[in-house]
Amino acid sequence: MAELKDLNTLRRFAMEKMQKVGLFETPRLFCDLYCLEPGQAQKAHSHGEADKVYLVVEGRAQIQVGSERFDVGPQQAVLAPSGSDHGVVNPGPGRAVLYVLMAHTPAGGGSTAKPAHDHDHGH
Amino acid sequence: MAELKDLNTLRRFAMEKMQKVGLFETPRLFCDLYCLEPGQAQKAHSHGEADKVYLVVEGRAQIQVGSERFDVGPQQAVLAPSGSDHGVVNPGPGRAVLYVLMAHTPAGGGSTAKPAHDHDHGH
Repeated sequence: MAELKDLNTLRRFAMEKMQKVGLFETPRLFCDLYCLEPGQAQKAHSHGEADKVYLVVEGRAQIQVGSERFDVGPQQAVLAPSGSDHGVVNPGPGRAVLYVLMAHTPAGGGSTAKPAHDHDHGH
Repeated sequence: MAELKDLNTLRRFAMEKMQKVGLFETPRLFCDLYCLEPGQAQKAHSHGEADKVYLVVEGRAQIQVGSERFDVGPQQAVLAPSGSDHGVVNPGPGRAVLYVLMAHTPAGGGSTAKPAHDHDHGH
């Protein structure tokens, strides 16, 4: 059944680490909200067979993709293609919120099995 | 090579029909900006093997998924799973901008071939 997700109400923060709020999940994609207090980060990591797109919806983020670093503000997006190292840091001074979508090849090339998605991945 | 896309500068409108601005494309995903003047729409359509997520970034949109209709405002998102009919209308009075991501199974279950993506699809 289809659902509407409201980023305005679902965003949440925590002092101990970046918060990752799940929005949607299908055999082909994960869509999450990343909420970072100043200084918080998702460490650089990579995954094969999955492309990730970051959209900054609030605040600013430094997004690393491979050897490149982007200074990203609201309504700006960056693609991290499969196999590239990528990570995100909130340089502050305020909070940052990113709408992040990861598209991956379903396990078995089309089955409904989902690969493991660790919501603490990368910390 | 990674790129930053700025929705603030890439958005564009036209009186004759909704504008679809391509942001990113990989074997696994299409990411586009839909820019609608009041009354413009993308007609309902469906595709197998592809999930679509709409995020309203400006204005309001009526998004249909199957038999459901959602009244969606800024920072709200709706998932249209594969196989469901889905479409979007800008009821006005202002312009609407949506950040839309479609995740699909790569042709051949993992090859780099891309299925046809008609940027006028659905009109």
